Order: sequence, then structure tokens, then C-alpha cells
Amino acid sequence: MKKHILIVPGDGIGQEVTTVGKQVLDRIAEKFGHEFTYDEALIGHVAIEATGDPLPEETLVKMRASDAILFGAVGHPKYDNDPSAKVRPEQGLLRMRKELGLYANLRPIKLFDELLEASSIKPEILKGCDILFFRELTGDVYFGKRERLDDGNTAYDTMIYSKYEVERIARKAFEAARTRSKKLMSVDKANVLESSRLWREVIQKLAPEYPDVEVEHQFIDAAAMLLIKDPRRFDVVVTGNLFGDILTDEASQIAGSMGMLASASVGDSTGVYEPIHGSAHDITGKGVANPLASVLSAALLLDISFGLKAESEAIIAAVDAVLKAGFRTRDIANSETPADKILGTDAMGAELLKNL
Amino acid sequence: MKKHILIVPGDGIGQEVTTVGKQVLDRIAEKFGHEFTYDEALIGHVAIEATGDPLPEETLVKMRASDAILFGAVGHPKYDNDPSAKVRPEQGLLRMRKELGLYANLRPIKLFDELLEASSIKPEILKGCDILFFRELTGDVYFGKRERLDDGNTAYDTMIYSKYEVERIARKAFEAARTRSKKLMSVDKANVLESSRLWREVIQKLAPEYPDVEVEHQFIDAAAMLLIKDPRRFDVVVTGNLFGDILTDEASQIAGSMGMLASASVGDSTGVYEPIHGSAHDITGKGVANPLASVLSAALLLDISFGLKAESEAIIAAVDAVLKAGFRTRDIANSETPADKILGTDAMGAELLKNL
Ligand SMILES: CC(C)[C@H](C(=O)O)[C@@H](O)C(=O)O
Ligand SMILES: CC(C)[C@H](C(=O)O)[C@@H](O)C(=O)O
Repeated sequence: MKKHILIVPGDGIGQEVTTVGKQVLDRIAEKFGHEFTYDEALIGHVAIEATGDPLPEETLVKMRASDAILFGAVGHPKYDNDPSAKVRPEQGLLRMRKELGLYANLRPIKLFDELLEASSIKPEILKGCDILFFRELTGDVYFGKRERLDDGNTAYDTMIYSKYEVERIARKAFEAARTRSKKLMSVDKANVLESSRLWREVIQKLAPEYPDVEVEHQFIDAAAMLLIKDPRRFDVVVTGNLFGDILTDEASQIAGSMGMLASASVGDSTGVYEPIHGSAHDITGKGVANPLASVLSAALLLDISFGLKAESEAIIAAVDAVLKAGFRTRDIANSETPADKILGTDAMGAELLKNL
Repeated sequence: MKKHILIVPGDGIGQEVTTVGKQVLDRIAEKFGHEFTYDEALIGHVAIEATGDPLPEETLVKMRASDAILFGAVGHPKYDNDPSAKVRPEQGLLRMRKELGLYANLRPIKLFDELLEASSIKPEILKGCDILFFRELTGDVYFGKRERLDDGNTAYDTMIYSKYEVERIARKAFEAARTRSKKLMSVDKANVLESSRLWREVIQKLAPEYPDVEVEHQFIDAAAMLLIKDPRRFDVVVTGNLFGDILTDEASQIAGSMGMLASASVGDSTGVYEPIHGSAHDITGKGVANPLASVLSAALLLDISFGLKAESEAIIAAVDAVLKAGFRTRDIANSETPADKILGTDAMGAELLKNL
């Protein structure tokens, strides 16, 4: 198979982890006889520094011309602490999602057995847990009108959904539920929000088309609680952009670390594959970032964008093997991990390649 | 001390748990020589059934005439599954908060040693954890304009904050931080939302007035993750209405059960004290609800609205004693709890009174 992959490292540890992700894609190409060509592009803070724009036109052109995108992270503390900044790295990320029509963000919470103890949640609560989140990604309060009023003393954002937006992500979630345990949880705040009542209406209206799928509605506050209390109750979950942002970050603790979680953003055109972790400037440049989320993002890319199941599974098996051999990055190590098994980003990448 | 207390049981298990809460207040009055008079009023689903209005005028009049309010819960599954219902129990709750100016919702996450094992989080992660949330309660997307557009096919809610609203809750949180570990965490989503940027601006502007308090800003997604990963990092937390709703429900799992958590809503006039759990219709009428959240709400009432510290502490000590004696309601029992120590609502109340 011949494919063109765009690498978009972005900010902070994005560079370090996508380097390993790309090495893994390269090895897969070699091993399975594919031809992957690559290009690279800027986004976020590094793009602002280089061009003044968090999503330069050149990046967008390259994105549209590629078959899939391996993405790093976006963000910089400089802007976080300056609420008045007009140009921000995150604008690049949000505009990319909108421009590419990436309305469905899939976040699988997959638990590697070896990491059962890495979580702050009790292993007996976690064992067997396997969740697939569908987070809506191009609507909600992320894209509604926002404004300052009243001489800057009041600010608002608009939480907004149209039925077609809910329907297209819900259908993806219903379809996925069919291939799994046939249970779908929809999360909203319909006891307060009109946009959530619209959300719930659409789910209820679609449900009869999927009679084999059992639908459960939860309010976001209850869901945030249940996710810790009884994570095995969750299988396929569909929710809006903001609630999905919160719930999936929380769910990362099930997998022991954000450093283990990959995501796929898909929709109308090129898919984007990225860790759910952020730019993590506190550890940037130290060579200690966990590259496995980027590696697992590469696995999702092969599976979802290219339909290369065996290749994708080979990567997951390699991650499993490396963990079974006892290797850990700092974020997933514990007090019992021998010092010589705690690896930096590159060394973890090297171990992984040995297993591919 | 002579005081008039309004009991507002509301829906579901609200009735069962406030009955115990009131018994405890009665016993305290007797023991400490106070004179508490009571009245009762309707809210929520039961008020709709009786009067068509989730917050009847009569209830509001009684609320304004009382010195403090012991509140149960509000909500009914009937409305949850009917997104088109025009009159809803929650409207009564929200209108009460607005009418009484209850802009500050205090939610202490207090961990009783005996319940360390009741949580799904590892005891070594929890030990020593003690958090005080300040949730803003009369602004945000709960009270902004909401509407259907486009023939009902689009719906929006408005997430809105004015600086004065942020300032008054933030000051309460800063003051509280001073009396505790002098650390304040503010939670927002300032990398995306304009209302969050306004929020952060206000916190940053106030910080120099409290030079002894160390301020940390977290995004809501990161906070939802950190709360599980490292709950001891949290001490005093201040956040908006929606993020506070989500985070505090999640935090309930630190205390082992929602059934243990009380809250105080205060502001311009009469304070309202209520469990953070909901109406729980699945267990309503079975006599198994945990009354301790209502009892601890009564303790908060005495402390905050009446300044009766010793009385409040007597209640907390009684709860502690009952737990130390091994008594549990179902929600906080585990597989090792002897059957004869698992009590229903009333029996738990009776044990508590023995210790007062
Ligand atoms: C960086 C931020 C804008 C982004 C989001 O909130 O969507 C991130 O948290 C994510 O989940 O991809
Ligand atoms: C019942 C509901 C409207 C309410 C809220 O969201 O505020 C509840 O969850 C709470 O936290 O008091």
C-alpha cells in the first residue's frame, strides 16, 4: 500500500513522541511491504512563533493533501497565564478540527494488564475494563459565538448543537456498540441544558433503528462519579465536545496514565491521530515523555484510515510485549519498578522496535 | 439560641434522609439548650404534583422567613426521559438558588478514616485527603439564555459570567484558603472559553490581595484527571457552576459514597444545607438510603448559619463514633461488613442519636 502521512508534532513533548510514532510507522512499512511517504507541518505555539498563525495555510494545504495525520500536541503555558492573548495555540487545533470536518473523536480506554497496578483506582475495580468514547468534536461551546460585553466585565460562550451534528456522531457510536457489547451510554445534562435536551431527543429518536443496542442516559455529573465508582459499567459512550473533553481525561486514570491513550479524530476527510495528553511543558526536552500514546495513535491510524488491521495489531502486541518485559516510562513506573527498567522516550522507542 | 428551621425534603429519598437530619437537630437543641422551631415546604416533583409549580410561592415565602433551610433532593426520572417537558423539578431548585442569592456552594470532601476502604480509589492515594470546594451557584450556563432555533433543530445555552460574580465567590475561597493550607486551585477552561478567561482574569487580579495564598490554575479536563490521580494535591478549590457540578460529584468517590457528602449554599440571605446526592428514585421508599449526608448537612447548618461550632462538632463526632462502631448503610458497606452491622435509614439514625 502506498500512502502519504503528514507528521504534525506541534508543541512541547509533541516533537519527542511523534518521532517515535513515525519510527514505528516506518518499521511497519518495511515489515509489511508498504510504502509510506512523509511530510511535516507546524501547528500551535511553534507555528505562531514561525508565522504568527497557529494554523498556517501551508499546514492546512499539506493536511488536505495527506492520507492521514500523526499529530503531537498543542499548547503553551505562556498563553494559559495571559487571559487577554488574542492569538493562541489552541485556535490552531480547533480550526484544524473544523476545517477538516473531524466531528468524531474516538478515544479507546484500553487497559494493558501489566499496568493494572499503575492506576490510583483499585485493580479489582478496573480489571476487564474496556471503554470506547465517542466525543463530538466540531460543535458545542468550543465553536459557538463568544464575546465580551459590558466594557469587558461580562463574557459569554454559546453551547450549541444542531440535530444533524448529534445524529452523525450518534450513528457512529451506535454502529460501534453493535460490534461490541451492544450497550451505549449517552452523557448529557438534560435536566438543565436545552442543548442537552436536543442531544437526548436525537439519541431517543435513533434508538429504535438499533433495537439490538441498549441505550442508557446519564447526566455528566453522575457519569463523572460512576466512571470512578464502577468503570466496567461503561462500554461505548457518546457525548458532546465539552463533556467528552472532561470525561476522557478523567478516564485516562483507568489506563494508569494519560501517556498510554491514543485518539482518532475522523469525519469528512483526512483523519488525525493523536495522544490525548497535552504538550506537557513541564517535562518537555527532558527525554522522559511516554511515547506509547503516540505509538498507539499510529496503530489507530493504520487501522481506521488505511484499514490495516494486522499492522495495527502488530503494534499493540509490541506495546504489550515491552510492558510484559517490564519496561516502563516514568509515568507508568511504580516504587517496585527496577531502576534499569525505567526508560526515557527514545529508549522506550528502541525497545518497541526490537519487538516489531 | 432561638431559631426557625425550614425542612424542604423535596423528591425521592429526600423525605427519608431529612427526617433523620431533623431528628439530629432536635437532639442537639435538647442537649445544648436551644429552641429550634420547624416548618416544612414543598419543592420539585412533589410541588409540581401538588401545585403545578416546582417552587410554589408559599415555599419561597417560608424560605425567606426561616433562619436556615435543611434541604433534601430534587428530581424525577419521568422528566429526565422526556426532553420536551416544559415544567421540571430542577427549575424549582435553580429558581430557589437564584431567588435566595445562594451564589456560593461549599462542598467539603471529608474522609472518615473508617471509610478509607469504601472508595474505589486506593487507600494510600486517599489517606489524609481533605478538600473544600467552592462552586459558584447562581451563574454560568445554568442561568444564561437558552433557546430553540431553526424549527427546533438547533438549541443553545449561554455560558456567561460577570466579573462581580467571580469576585464574590473567589473572595470566599481565598478567605477559606487562609484558614487552611493557604493553597487555592481555580478551575476553568481558559484555553478555549471566553467566560473562563474572564474567570481567570478576576482570580489573577485578586491574588495580590491575598499574598499568603498560593494560587494554581487548572483546566477542567486536567483537574478531572488529577482529582483521581493525586487527590491530596487539592485543598481549597474554586470553580464555576457547571465545572463545580461535575468535579464535586466525581470527588464524592473520594469519600467512598455520595451518601456521605453534605453541602452548604450561602449568599445574600437564608442558607440552604443539603446532601450532594440526588433524589435516587431507584432506592426511594426502601428505607436503605444513607442519612449521613443529611445529618452532616445539619452540622454545616449549625456551624455556618448559626455559628454553633461545638454543636456541629458533636454531630461529626457522633457520625465518626457510629462508623467506628462498624455500622454502615448499604452504600458504604463492603464484603467484609457483618450483616447485622448493615443498617437502614432509620436504624442508622437511631444509632446516631444514641451517640449524641
Ligand atoms: C488543548 C485543548 C483545546 C483540547 C480540547 O479541549 O479539546 C484538549 O484538551 C483535547 O482534549 O484535545
Ligand atoms: C439537580 C441538578 C440540577 C443539580 C445541579 O446540577 O446543580 C444537582 O446536580 C446538584 O449538584 O445540586
